[in-house]
Amino acid sequence: MKKQVFAFEEGDGKNKTLLGGKGANLCEMTQIGLNVPSGFVITTETCLDYLDSDEGALPESLMAEIRDQMVSLEEKTGKKFGDANDPLLVSVRSGSAMSMPGMMDTILNLGLNSETLKGEIQQTGDERFAYDSYRRFIQLFGKVALGIDDEPFDRVFEQIKNDRHVREDVGLSADDLALICEEFLEIVKLETGRVFPEDPYEQLELSIKAVFGSWMGKRAIDYRREFNITSEMANGTAVNICTMVFGNRGDDCATGVAFTRNPGTGENRLYGEYLINAQGEDVVAGIRTPKSIELMASEMPELHVQLEELRARLEGHYHEVQDFEFTIERGILYCLQTRNGKMNATAMVRTSVEMEREGLINKEQALLRINPLHLEQMLYPRLDPGVRVDALAQGLPASPGAASGMAVFDADRAELLGKAGEKVILLREETKPEDIHGFFTSQAILTSRGGKTSHAAVVARGMGKPCVAGAEGIEVDVNLRQAIIGDIIIKEGDWLTLDGTSGNVYLGKVATVESEFTSELNTLLSWADEVARLKVMANADTPSDATKAIQYGAMGIGLCRTERMFNDQERLPLVIEMIVAENKLERQQALDNLLPIQRADFKGLFEVMSPRKVIIRLLDPPIHEFLPSENQLKSEIKQLKHLLDMASGASVLAGTMNLLASGEGRRLMDKVPLPTMVDPSLVEEAINKKTSMLKKVRALYETNPMLGHRGVRLGITFPEIYSMQIRAILEASAECIAKGVDVRPHIMIPQVSTVEELKFIKEFTDSIHAEVEKSYNLKVNYKFGSMLEVVRACMRAESLAGVAEFFSFGTNDLSQATFSFSREDAENKFLPLYNERGILQDNPFEVLDREGVGKLMELAVNWGRESRKDMSIGICGEHGGHPDSIHFCHQIGLDYVSCSGPRVPIARLAAAHAALVH
Amino acid sequence: MKKQVFAFEEGDGKNKTLLGGKGANLCEMTQIGLNVPSGFVITTETCLDYLDSDEGALPESLMAEIRDQMVSLEEKTGKKFGDANDPLLVSVRSGSAMSMPGMMDTILNLGLNSETLKGEIQQTGDERFAYDSYRRFIQLFGKVALGIDDEPFDRVFEQIKNDRHVREDVGLSADDLALICEEFLEIVKLETGRVFPEDPYEQLELSIKAVFGSWMGKRAIDYRREFNITSEMANGTAVNICTMVFGNRGDDCATGVAFTRNPGTGENRLYGEYLINAQGEDVVAGIRTPKSIELMASEMPELHVQLEELRARLEGHYHEVQDFEFTIERGILYCLQTRNGKMNATAMVRTSVEMEREGLINKEQALLRINPLHLEQMLYPRLDPGVRVDALAQGLPASPGAASGMAVFDADRAELLGKAGEKVILLREETKPEDIHGFFTSQAILTSRGGKTSHAAVVARGMGKPCVAGAEGIEVDVNLRQAIIGDIIIKEGDWLTLDGTSGNVYLGKVATVESEFTSELNTLLSWADEVARLKVMANADTPSDATKAIQYGAMGIGLCRTERMFNDQERLPLVIEMIVAENKLERQQALDNLLPIQRADFKGLFEVMSPRKVIIRLLDPPIHEFLPSENQLKSEIKQLKHLLDMASGASVLAGTMNLLASGEGRRLMDKVPLPTMVDPSLVEEAINKKTSMLKKVRALYETNPMLGHRGVRLGITFPEIYSMQIRAILEASAECIAKGVDVRPHIMIPQVSTVEELKFIKEFTDSIHAEVEKSYNLKVNYKFGSMLEVVRACMRAESLAGVAEFFSFGTNDLSQATFSFSREDAENKFLPLYNERGILQDNPFEVLDREGVGKLMELAVNWGRESRKDMSIGICGEHGGHPDSIHFCHQIGLDYVSCSGPRVPIARLAAAHAALVH
Repeated sequence: MKKQVFAFEEGDGKNKTLLGGKGANLCEMTQIGLNVPSGFVITTETCLDYLDSDEGALPESLMAEIRDQMVSLEEKTGKKFGDANDPLLVSVRSGSAMSMPGMMDTILNLGLNSETLKGEIQQTGDERFAYDSYRRFIQLFGKVALGIDDEPFDRVFEQIKNDRHVREDVGLSADDLALICEEFLEIVKLETGRVFPEDPYEQLELSIKAVFGSWMGKRAIDYRREFNITSEMANGTAVNICTMVFGNRGDDCATGVAFTRNPGTGENRLYGEYLINAQGEDVVAGIRTPKSIELMASEMPELHVQLEELRARLEGHYHEVQDFEFTIERGILYCLQTRNGKMNATAMVRTSVEMEREGLINKEQALLRINPLHLEQMLYPRLDPGVRVDALAQGLPASPGAASGMAVFDADRAELLGKAGEKVILLREETKPEDIHGFFTSQAILTSRGGKTSHAAVVARGMGKPCVAGAEGIEVDVNLRQAIIGDIIIKEGDWLTLDGTSGNVYLGKVATVESEFTSELNTLLSWADEVARLKVMANADTPSDATKAIQYGAMGIGLCRTERMFNDQERLPLVIEMIVAENKLERQQALDNLLPIQRADFKGLFEVMSPRKVIIRLLDPPIHEFLPSENQLKSEIKQLKHLLDMASGASVLAGTMNLLASGEGRRLMDKVPLPTMVDPSLVEEAINKKTSMLKKVRALYETNPMLGHRGVRLGITFPEIYSMQIRAILEASAECIAKGVDVRPHIMIPQVSTVEELKFIKEFTDSIHAEVEKSYNLKVNYKFGSMLEVVRACMRAESLAGVAEFFSFGTNDLSQATFSFSREDAENKFLPLYNERGILQDNPFEVLDREGVGKLMELAVNWGRESRKDMSIGICGEHGGHPDSIHFCHQIGLDYVSCSGPRVPIARLAAAHAALVH
Repeated sequence: MKKQVFAFEEGDGKNKTLLGGKGANLCEMTQIGLNVPSGFVITTETCLDYLDSDEGALPESLMAEIRDQMVSLEEKTGKKFGDANDPLLVSVRSGSAMSMPGMMDTILNLGLNSETLKGEIQQTGDERFAYDSYRRFIQLFGKVALGIDDEPFDRVFEQIKNDRHVREDVGLSADDLALICEEFLEIVKLETGRVFPEDPYEQLELSIKAVFGSWMGKRAIDYRREFNITSEMANGTAVNICTMVFGNRGDDCATGVAFTRNPGTGENRLYGEYLINAQGEDVVAGIRTPKSIELMASEMPELHVQLEELRARLEGHYHEVQDFEFTIERGILYCLQTRNGKMNATAMVRTSVEMEREGLINKEQALLRINPLHLEQMLYPRLDPGVRVDALAQGLPASPGAASGMAVFDADRAELLGKAGEKVILLREETKPEDIHGFFTSQAILTSRGGKTSHAAVVARGMGKPCVAGAEGIEVDVNLRQAIIGDIIIKEGDWLTLDGTSGNVYLGKVATVESEFTSELNTLLSWADEVARLKVMANADTPSDATKAIQYGAMGIGLCRTERMFNDQERLPLVIEMIVAENKLERQQALDNLLPIQRADFKGLFEVMSPRKVIIRLLDPPIHEFLPSENQLKSEIKQLKHLLDMASGASVLAGTMNLLASGEGRRLMDKVPLPTMVDPSLVEEAINKKTSMLKKVRALYETNPMLGHRGVRLGITFPEIYSMQIRAILEASAECIAKGVDVRPHIMIPQVSTVEELKFIKEFTDSIHAEVEKSYNLKVNYKFGSMLEVVRACMRAESLAGVAEFFSFGTNDLSQATFSFSREDAENKFLPLYNERGILQDNPFEVLDREGVGKLMELAVNWGRESRKDMSIGICGEHGGHPDSIHFCHQIGLDYVSCSGPRVPIARLAAAHAALVH
């Protein structure tokens, strides 16, 4: 027969699965000699046996074991269970392997009945206290064990308080409470048809059943679902039976909760609150305001010393900050419960570093106790956690961080006001590459359309600016320069606050807290780098991104998206010229103008990153992304035609001009002083230009641009574009080398699906390389690699590795192709429901899908290394910054991950975890 | 030392690789005792050795071997090479392992020089003949061996003909020809700086070098590239040296070409042409009109008997229809060459069946000698091969077959005229589901936009109607009801002819030939079914499709696309109601109306197909595909508003009405007699309806619809849609069973990416199933399966097989996802270039990509059968009808392929091939 009940003296304090977290800790504390009220634990296995049984009966021998334990408790305490003179009272508490605060049931003061009540009065000499305990017990037992609503109890209680004209419970006399007890017993009789059980063992049995049953209660089930607690993590609840101790039996009594260190700052100092002459629930209920534990040094100096001792012993034993409950009964300090303290990231990092220095933990433990994702708190500004305001609207949390600014409705205004020193938030239906200049000068970006991969989201994340995307409740009217959210109209200049971490949008300025890249964090991350096998690189497109990336500890650039360089307002016209070119010559002309610009870009990057790797991805998106949309062009042409009508009519008044507020019309007018004539030929020329662009936009139209004419497919159909980029990279390298700067240029080809594509590009790369080496008269080493973001590339990795010297998984695109989900569409249309219904546990665009995408990656890694043994393989894209994905990348043998700058610290810690946990 | 030269008596007639096709056949024929002029073959290896050598010299010992052979020839013929009395003349012909007609060089009459010419005159007694032979030799040798253009020779020849006032060569006398020979020799001297080589061995050596060299000539290289002849198939050319025989030495001489059976019909009867007193090149050159071989029976009865004998011996030996050349010199029949006869499909099929019956070949050979793709000729109407016209425009060959009809520009007109008995071709920019009624009554479909997977293409293929898609040269103007192609304007009613097999569009009626599903084809295909392991099923959506599919020999329906049923003009309004429903109740209402219709559809299918399998795929495309496009709705609303303006104004004139030619406006007006008032409230209602539909269309907009909210994703977000379809399938099954009809319903879920999706659908399928069995009080057996068209489904096949009872690869979508190519976009933007540059050998949407997509499929098959050993796995979609893909499907162990009805015969033969060829 397996043992179902363990005294605190005998239970294995490490076995939380069997004893629950609370029970195991009570055993542990008892066994290391802390002063814990005597008690015992009924195992979680017993709970499962009970829940499995059809008859709803407790396992046969259980009550016998419990009786033995109760006898033993009686011996230890000198009290007797059910004794009319000196009754033993106990608490009955649930406690599973995972903490589920408040989700299951607790009963206090069990053992009271009309007989033992007398003994209690006699023992304490405090009639009021005894009746108060009794009425609490009746209600709690009635509710938990007998299933009676609080409502009739509360009604009686309030009634009597009204009758007595008292507002607080403490105003009730012993007699009042006695009357309440009487009425409560009547309620029980009325509701259950039976008298309140007087037999304490019956009380105990019913309570145990109730606690067991609460494991399958709706609250508990919902909680487990909400927090993804699986049956492997916690299965069934233990029941802890513990001798009652009372902090409310006089001024030498107290109760409190404390952390061994400050959970907000990590400071190595006892932190907590206590109340003299009070019960635990009073601290929680907030009926009286508890005092800071520091006051105890003067109020109860002796006990404060004991508490400090307790603190030291807890940390000394657990090697972890503890969050513990204590009660002082008649000058004796009892520890009722302890668990690892929950802290914010700043405190976690500081305590990790300090505990390591104190020798409490080693570096490995210091790293492992911190969830990498929690570092996010320290890396972005966030809303002041003290402030509570209601959100005005909600969108997708597209780029983390919080910021306030005045609403503006187009990029030009954002730039104008931003450069004038104003804080602005760019609010658009959606953004396009041509809005990029407005991003630089905005605090944050808010869009009413688009998902987490929309232009706004991706660019904002790259820049580390907060972004809320797809806030569908917001109606943006660019022409009126306003947005409507429900009844509220936001005009240009109105203040908003965005929280890109939650997706919330607030009206006005909400206080924010700055990011805290502390010296302890630096220390911790340097330890992480020591143990990690994966290198952490950053996605960065500009020298200033790169500078930040280095600050975050990036070991190189894993992804430089050259198209980002094209989006700059000065360059876009050149790019558009290249696109609308009617022939190769015209295109070459435009490319010749772009070459020196790109070369300068790369030179800047190389200089900042030297001597680290810089992996540059050639042009990836379909070129129509650089052009305005069909609708926009149509409306611009319409405006221009209107302008032409007016211009050919007569003089144009400034007022009328203002109506034509946006786009080309305004830009044209900016060139001429107002009020004056607009030169019709100028307008006609603009119309022609726009019309030919419209034609091009239509010709470039694609049904599924995600799967269209992009990446290497562009590089092959327009080799002159890739040639320009390759030349720019190699010439920039040569110029750096000439200055003695150590460069590691890597050229990476996107959207590859077959080795023939790589061969095609490699061929002209080699010839440009030879030209550059010759004309600069020096040696330029570079590496040539391929993205693995097309499924076929993975399937053909062995063959690709014959040409590519490195691989980088683009898991954004790869996940889209593997699932046949367009991220934008999926996140708007069905992914939320998929997650809700449990069809997918996670959003595969946030958490790498190991079973599908991951399996494919693993095959590709193995195939690739079959033909090139030392193949360097990494991952770029958003999964590269997610701890779970990083763990997987480590497992399948990748060499590096690359993620956006601010995620680098998270990735560094996650990489260390991956190396430490097997 | 390897042997480089083989006499016809000694060469291995099976070794075409070494001796070339022609050489091997000459050896073979000689050795089986046919009368072949004596000769020998220089091996292809020798050719390669020569081409590899740097000095451009023939391999050392070659000329010695050749001299030996020439001596032997002299012995056999009694003539002497270079002899002034009775000179031996030879031909020098190329011949590689693969037939490359006309691509390499031939020299005749070699051995003639000023000396041997005399001997020739003496021997033949025909001076004119001898000079004619000589001048032909000088020019041919000059051109082939010495590299002299034809031009100076032709100039001299024409000059002398002019001088002599003769128009035909035959008008020239022996003297004229002697003069020509003299001038030709001068030309050689002038052009090469050397006199014409008199030494016959020098002539021979130079000729052999020239023939070898022609293997790497531009013409030959281009030909090999064009016909995909790889070096494994043919490497180097052999050289055949053969004693000259002359069909032009009198009336007991003749020359001809013949097939052992009729290559146009397959009839078992000698077929060919001959010319008395002529040389082979005269037959080819068409200077005289050759006679049908049947005439020979009366003209040269003895030789005709010999020819029949030759025919029998050739077929008896080769077990294949032969295409042979013969020459009769002075009453003696020589066979100069033979090869397998090229025939059209009808002839191939008939000869296969007849030769099997005659015992010439066995069934296996009868099947293997026919290329499955060639059957296409017999299955679709095609342009009369005799007619030659220039195409007006070209598009993509989107659905095979040829048809003529009058151009119409919208589906309503197509229906109206089609029902009135007119032959029409529907010509649109692109088609939408709402055009479907126009498809039924059109002969063929022509679009100016869209690829091979556009709506028009897919629907036309399903219906077996010819379609040319994406003919970009055509500008369609629906409003003017006309199309512009270059300078030509096509008005409604103008006749066009389409060839969907080539993609050509012709003006007017071009004669076509009907399809020929002969009884021999049926016989052949029944043999194919006996040996094939793969079952061939058809894609069919309606009972009439199914009936046709059975005629084509389909063994079941492998894919019924339920959405096709939605597109019917009577149903579309119900479907649209379902889509625009504002809530679940409204949607359920629309679905309730659709249920009996779908049930009747399925019943019809089951009845036709009983007792075969019917695999029904639940709704797959994104639902916005059933709605009109945003632009169309906008323009309809605009029209309606215009109509409203007019209607509220006053009476409406018929003439004005005609301006509002298309769409809803016209339909509304059709309801009211003209001229009259339009009821404004009716128009307003229509505007409201359209406006709310426009809103819905916008809400359903997707960036990448291919990867969007479709298939099982719809089934999960709107379970009521799938529920209706499942209920319709199961109720239809029950009703059939009740009538004693044996049904095999298979429910197939599209776009599955995870087993949880399958579980979700299976759960409500099971409960509907239980309901149906209960209410019909009978047992309904059905199978539940999954498409494998999402990469992740392949990766998770093992897990999916836990729920799915069968799999069907959807290789259209799977190829798109594996390559990250949107077919529509790829075929328009970059695939042609990819094929041209050799980056991809084939279009992966036509020929299954074995290395990428296929590899993934093979993994999925193995994984799936790991968890369900007897898993039935097939392929549906276009690859299922392509022989190469079918072969692959056989190799990886699939159970069935499913393709469009007309491809079924091709697939049946291909499946047999796959089983026979390992």
